[in-house]
Amino acid sequence: MNYLTYLSVFDKLTKSQQDALTSAAFVRKFRKSEILHNGSQDCTGLILVLSGQIRAFTISDDGREITMYRLFERDICLFSAACIMNSIQFDITITAEKDAEVLVIPSEVYKSVMEVSAPLANYTNEVMASRFSDVMWLIDQVMWKSFDKRLAGFLLNEANIEGTNTLKITHETIGNHLGSPREVVTRMLKYFVNERLISLSRGTIEIIDKSGLEKITD
Amino acid sequence: MNYLTYLSVFDKLTKSQQDALTSAAFVRKFRKSEILHNGSQDCTGLILVLSGQIRAFTISDDGREITMYRLFERDICLFSAACIMNSIQFDITITAEKDAEVLVIPSEVYKSVMEVSAPLANYTNEVMASRFSDVMWLIDQVMWKSFDKRLAGFLLNEANIEGTNTLKITHETIGNHLGSPREVVTRMLKYFVNERLISLSRGTIEIIDKSGLEKITD
Repeated sequence: MNYLTYLSVFDKLTKSQQDALTSAAFVRKFRKSEILHNGSQDCTGLILVLSGQIRAFTISDDGREITMYRLFERDICLFSAACIMNSIQFDITITAEKDAEVLVIPSEVYKSVMEVSAPLANYTNEVMASRFSDVMWLIDQVMWKSFDKRLAGFLLNEANIEGTNTLKITHETIGNHLGSPREVVTRMLKYFVNERLISLSRGTIEIIDKSGLEKITD
Repeated sequence: MNYLTYLSVFDKLTKSQQDALTSAAFVRKFRKSEILHNGSQDCTGLILVLSGQIRAFTISDDGREITMYRLFERDICLFSAACIMNSIQFDITITAEKDAEVLVIPSEVYKSVMEVSAPLANYTNEVMASRFSDVMWLIDQVMWKSFDKRLAGFLLNEANIEGTNTLKITHETIGNHLGSPREVVTRMLKYFVNERLISLSRGTIEIIDKSGLEKITD
């Protein structure tokens, strides 16, 4: 099984380009919370998620975090190969949010094919535009949406990803996703409890009124 | 004078690609405040700024604005040709911040060359990565920087762009750049007056202590 066929562009490459990518690519496993890439480290390579869940986030000077986007099976992580483009002037950290298996395409090989292949360069463009759209959505959220809307949306999204209304997640982790202090998360969760939207117990948040949360996000 | 030679990639295109772009491109003038492009309108084309100043911003549902980035002479505006990429899923509005002259490369012509030219596709990648970096900087600002830092930084940047310490700009316009209500801008400007960093008169902000403002931004 050549996982590179997951890339929709793969059959538009020449045989020798396909071979170059195939022979350079390798599978790597990451444990939950392991770092795949961080801004200051060397250029890992392009990452294709085979299984698990990946989180891309930025960190402030004093260690606060906010999630930029998350990647799931068959998603591509471009910024772990940031060195392939000169104009990427920002640091992003990428970790495994769950145990993950990924295909790594080393940066220099990917870059050398991209330089001569219009299809691969255009494909890369589309991947970047897609992440750009994620980040524009984030700006819209942090600029104009009140925190209750963002938190309700986050809980619904988590329930959707996990396929359960019982979320095992700490208030601090939620804060790191949303770029907010833990106390702010705790206060708003308690407000949701009073409104009978959720219930809290040790390390668990139970969604009890999904449509109530949905009403808040509107 | 073929303005397309401003594109660093131009001499890496074939003669016929150069000709296709050259014969399709045309110069347009925009008056200050005129809209070059907005998210819901048709796909204007790629814009190369020849003179003047361009502003790209987003608007909230209730009409509030925040500046994403600004473009000056020889900068490229990619998102005025958003239709060349499927994955651009956000709306951006682009206006002339000062009277501007731009070269428009119609989207369909640019796209048709980009589809077959690895150099042009890679060039487009670099332009997008550069705008992506601007937007990541913006997230860093709005998430982690207090408003006094952002406002001081904005005033210093304006003085730098205009080449003067006397800025003719309204509090509302500043608010639209920074995504903040006018009253918040006015309050902070008055604080800066008390600190003897600036002085205010009708429609004008005078920077009187540049290094004081710089100290705030640190």
